[in-house]
Amino acid sequence: MNESFKNPFFRWDDGIFITIDQTKLPFKETYIKLYDTQDYYDAIKKLKVRGAPAIGVVASFGVLSSIYRNKNFKKAKEESLKTIEILKTARPTAVNIFNLLEKMKVIIESFDSNDYQFFKDEIFEFCKKVYDYEVYTCEKMADYGYRLIKNGMNVLTHCNTGMLATPGIGTALGIIFKAHEKNIKFNLFIPETRPLLQGSRLTVFEVEKFKIPYTLITDNMRGYLFLQGKIDITFVGADRIALNGDTANKIGTFESALFSYYFKKPFYVVAPTTTFDRKIKTGREITIEERKKEEIISIQSKKITIAKNVFNPAFDVTPSKFITGIITEKGIIKAKRECIKKIL
Amino acid sequence: MNESFKNPFFRWDDGIFITIDQTKLPFKETYIKLYDTQDYYDAIKKLKVRGAPAIGVVASFGVLSSIYRNKNFKKAKEESLKTIEILKTARPTAVNIFNLLEKMKVIIESFDSNDYQFFKDEIFEFCKKVYDYEVYTCEKMADYGYRLIKNGMNVLTHCNTGMLATPGIGTALGIIFKAHEKNIKFNLFIPETRPLLQGSRLTVFEVEKFKIPYTLITDNMRGYLFLQGKIDITFVGADRIALNGDTANKIGTFESALFSYYFKKPFYVVAPTTTFDRKIKTGREITIEERKKEEIISIQSKKITIAKNVFNPAFDVTPSKFITGIITEKGIIKAKRECIKKIL
Repeated sequence: MNESFKNPFFRWDDGIFITIDQTKLPFKETYIKLYDTQDYYDAIKKLKVRGAPAIGVVASFGVLSSIYRNKNFKKAKEESLKTIEILKTARPTAVNIFNLLEKMKVIIESFDSNDYQFFKDEIFEFCKKVYDYEVYTCEKMADYGYRLIKNGMNVLTHCNTGMLATPGIGTALGIIFKAHEKNIKFNLFIPETRPLLQGSRLTVFEVEKFKIPYTLITDNMRGYLFLQGKIDITFVGADRIALNGDTANKIGTFESALFSYYFKKPFYVVAPTTTFDRKIKTGREITIEERKKEEIISIQSKKITIAKNVFNPAFDVTPSKFITGIITEKGIIKAKRECIKKIL
Repeated sequence: MNESFKNPFFRWDDGIFITIDQTKLPFKETYIKLYDTQDYYDAIKKLKVRGAPAIGVVASFGVLSSIYRNKNFKKAKEESLKTIEILKTARPTAVNIFNLLEKMKVIIESFDSNDYQFFKDEIFEFCKKVYDYEVYTCEKMADYGYRLIKNGMNVLTHCNTGMLATPGIGTALGIIFKAHEKNIKFNLFIPETRPLLQGSRLTVFEVEKFKIPYTLITDNMRGYLFLQGKIDITFVGADRIALNGDTANKIGTFESALFSYYFKKPFYVVAPTTTFDRKIKTGREITIEERKKEEIISIQSKKITIAKNVFNPAFDVTPSKFITGIITEKGIIKAKRECIKKIL
């Protein structure tokens, strides 16, 4: 991978996690240092860090940091288990943060050596692996996916799925970076992604940085672009995928899937296999996070309406029938139970 | 009609037109007085007044005001013809402003009596008729349309089509007001309608004023609501309708039409017959206004993104096949050439 496509946004520095405050983007590149559990919880809850892979990584380092802070085995074990329970409640829809924290819980509970240094080193190794795994899976998914983008195509994405959403080069956006690196000529349509504008704030920030050709649109322009034949292929990320392929992702994703389906254009979900939730059979079992109404009635803390009654689901669930394929680090598969079973 | 549903926003006061500055809503109810042609042009161009019926009415009074200002026949005729040419260029997509101004041009050109008072009175009568016609058509459309709303329904609209968009009770929103007045119990979903937020700023302002039950959403939530069976019927306005029924309306309208079509729910366009453009056979001939990029990169003058490349069509064109029916003052018709021909 070209040096220019190395992710600069997530770093562990001996007990402290350093990341960029995404709520301040694109106007301020403010790096924040996460010290204690409350810092990690707030960073995830308040979307200073967001994107399913990124919040999983940051949460696991949050657990590690509690071990760094409590310099004896018993205390560190106790505090790290507490931290796990707290961080689990930060956001409900993405699955990998749960799975990672559950896995850490099992590992930490099984420790009884009373050897603080060994305990700390082992959990550090675990976190490093989680981090490296995300970097690796992004590379693999980009390798599988970029070949789907041909010269002259108009590509649609949604929300932000790039280097701000994972410590790697990105999931859906990673594919787009890779296609650009391979000198494929395309145009990327970026829907602004209301309410929190991850498209216009974050994805635009990334594509400007890496000089990807793009056009920013409002979310409600997508249908008309499809009608005019101006979208050739769509790549989106995922927060949780059921065993039948139903996919939870940022609100508005289903609309792109339906447009693709109706106009017979390919629609790909890009997600590492950790995004599959082995416990749920269909999308109906996925809990959709409803966020507070301020996100709708204000934009970047400027009030835009006097509305009192607001509905604000953060995600939607796209039924598998609308999905052309799921691009994972193990290859591109159909969004079908039997295909998913094979790679898990 | 109940007194509470009388339109308070458009008034002619002996040479001056008084209306509410819609760009300041919902936080400030600022009434503006339009004196000269530049005032009228700016009000329309800058969306202080908007909505296809409203801009037609305001433009015709703009012509009248130029006659009021120039107190001799020759000067008044000359200036009013100049005003017509200027106001025609204010916005390109809505058709009734064009047709009205064209009609006024023919009438004014035909005057050669040299009787200033007679000229002024005649044009005043013309404008009053235009105004009263909008009030009348809204009433008729509401009467035809409200019966489609049944108790317990979830109703979807788009943009703003109420008393801020016409001097009457509204087109699509007029139907909703009428249903409420008739004690039908329903919930109205209002998409915020980016980029200019006519939904969250203007429609919410109106429904709050008249106590209509509503839920504000972002535009990208509509598909998911349809998927969940939470939308039963949709009413939208129109800026221009081709003779085959293809309809230009605020960007994002086509998406609601497609969702309705796919999920087999009724989708109605509500527009007086003046919205039909007898000169165009299909929607392909409709010019779509592209507005400046500031509308996307800023929200209420707060900059939200560093994006340089932006696409900002103000309207889209919904092909007639996606439209269940068109509700006009002459009845509800199918969006088909032969049905449209009959009522024009």
